[in-house]
Amino acid sequence: MEEAQNKQIIFRDYIEGAPKETDMELKAGTVKLKVPKGSGALLVKNLYLSCDPYMRGRMRDYHGSYIPPFVPGSVIEGFGVSKVLDSDDPNFKTGDLVSGITGWEEYSLIQKTEQLRKIQQEDIPISYYVGLLGMPGFTAYAGFYEVCSPKKGEYVFVSAASGAVGQLVGQLAKLHGCYVVGSAGSSQKVDLLKNKLGFDEAFNYKEEPDLDAALKRYFQQGIDIYFDNVGGPMLDAAFLNMRIHGRIAVCGMVSQHSFSDPEGIRHLYMLVAKRIRMEGFLQSDFLHLFPDFMKHIISHCKQGKIVYIEDMNEGLESAPAAFAGLFSGKNVGKQVICVARQ
Amino acid sequence: MEEAQNKQIIFRDYIEGAPKETDMELKAGTVKLKVPKGSGALLVKNLYLSCDPYMRGRMRDYHGSYIPPFVPGSVIEGFGVSKVLDSDDPNFKTGDLVSGITGWEEYSLIQKTEQLRKIQQEDIPISYYVGLLGMPGFTAYAGFYEVCSPKKGEYVFVSAASGAVGQLVGQLAKLHGCYVVGSAGSSQKVDLLKNKLGFDEAFNYKEEPDLDAALKRYFQQGIDIYFDNVGGPMLDAAFLNMRIHGRIAVCGMVSQHSFSDPEGIRHLYMLVAKRIRMEGFLQSDFLHLFPDFMKHIISHCKQGKIVYIEDMNEGLESAPAAFAGLFSGKNVGKQVICVARQ
Repeated sequence: MEEAQNKQIIFRDYIEGAPKETDMELKAGTVKLKVPKGSGALLVKNLYLSCDPYMRGRMRDYHGSYIPPFVPGSVIEGFGVSKVLDSDDPNFKTGDLVSGITGWEEYSLIQKTEQLRKIQQEDIPISYYVGLLGMPGFTAYAGFYEVCSPKKGEYVFVSAASGAVGQLVGQLAKLHGCYVVGSAGSSQKVDLLKNKLGFDEAFNYKEEPDLDAALKRYFQQGIDIYFDNVGGPMLDAAFLNMRIHGRIAVCGMVSQHSFSDPEGIRHLYMLVAKRIRMEGFLQSDFLHLFPDFMKHIISHCKQGKIVYIEDMNEGLESAPAAFAGLFSGKNVGKQVICVARQ
Repeated sequence: MEEAQNKQIIFRDYIEGAPKETDMELKAGTVKLKVPKGSGALLVKNLYLSCDPYMRGRMRDYHGSYIPPFVPGSVIEGFGVSKVLDSDDPNFKTGDLVSGITGWEEYSLIQKTEQLRKIQQEDIPISYYVGLLGMPGFTAYAGFYEVCSPKKGEYVFVSAASGAVGQLVGQLAKLHGCYVVGSAGSSQKVDLLKNKLGFDEAFNYKEEPDLDAALKRYFQQGIDIYFDNVGGPMLDAAFLNMRIHGRIAVCGMVSQHSFSDPEGIRHLYMLVAKRIRMEGFLQSDFLHLFPDFMKHIISHCKQGKIVYIEDMNEGLESAPAAFAGLFSGKNVGKQVICVARQ
């Protein structure tokens, strides 16, 4: 039976605080390139791996979440685009491209094939299936349309706006007829937001000593919808600027590095005076909308009405640093690792 | 023209922190017991005055709220039940009983008669029209049915549970088939919750060094609905105990004594993992439901299925201390001032 080298990224041990490159390590192993008969599994070659902030939650020894923690000493799991090399599942055949949860390694044996989606090749980069057309894109879609209840002409604020989720939220809001402002952490990202992603305005939060004042400058009428990707001080400042019956969709709090000592949100009392609805959500609660999402976004993407910025790192070796970089905002656009092109 | 003595409670000046008795003062004046012709106004004798926590918001020099601040040196305004002595409004006649915004004084000239509701005498104490059948009762009704989206069998937690709003929330939740636990600040209140108001369980939060542990004790399955009347540390502890797709209705944060230095809420990140919906609301946004509310509550009240506990202070002079007492939990039940019985 054919064997191949299989480099892997191993999760060392549970962490506190923001993930560091050294929380993961590269290990060289081997893999048999055949699926055991009767296993119902797939043997895939991983092409693109996705670095997503939610994965930090799996690095903690906390079992009360919607997804279990990683196992120390095991290969890291995450979304990826992979090519089927061998299949014991009649729904997939050699050569198929699939997206779904795979391992941070060159080759993976995937047992839970029911979570995989087959990729119908379109005139769209296949790496988009872990970004624009994957979990982050669907988070933007479900969060914006289902949680934010947007109306034409409303004032929309998006934080981490050039990130995997934020960049699509902003574009969907513009297509919906909203006024959209984004925040990001560098002048390069601000430039992309204004000149490539079509935001009406954008600002670098790191250059704003007073976030409340910054929001007041960009939202003289106040904010109808805040799509919160960061939590922390930005969320607190947004509370002070929400309009009556404003909505806050919360899909992650990337600024919150610690469960044991989270920052306090002080302006929650604004919820009552402004009758604000604030809702945490996960895209996985909206999967019945996934086919609509794909149709909608693929169509807009092909027409050039939606663009998507990726930050592509080359080689599995680059994954730990790329993942850690998410938490200091090093990535510009959706962070992807190219393990192999085909 | 007949004149009468008119004692008044005057608002001294804007405050920081919790209201004190000395923030108000008693003044003796006179009043003409006739309405000026052509004014469209009513001259009323005030019978019952309502002490409500929201009034603290009007004692601050903050103009961004849904209701303007009191004017220093002027009589305090609040909900009351009053008897019409003279009317220049064809919708009201001498002898009518009305509820609505009036002054903290013996007699008031009411210009904004459109906000008044005529009381149809039922076999129900008329003071209930500022409590069970007034703003607090309607807050409970709209908040529970419209904001909390309750389902039979769900686990409901109510803070300030023996207060003007909380006691009705708990009883509505029980009638809806929910399991209901309330928190309050004395053993007397806990006793009322369990033995008079029909809560399944109740606890004295002042005797709980660890609110998270207390909630875990009473909600081993977690909380589906938290009706939050207090904010602060109790809200923070509730976040840690919410179930997936839990709802938090926020109608006031009586524990938060300061806008300029509010306490931080640290466990907001639970919003995402548990997909919690948190919503601030005001009863005034639901006034289309008021007729249903009255019918529903009056019927249940007459059948003895809903009871209501009032804390009745005698005499206008007692109003400042009674109002200040709300913020240290001195009141047992809905705080009302009896100015005159008829």
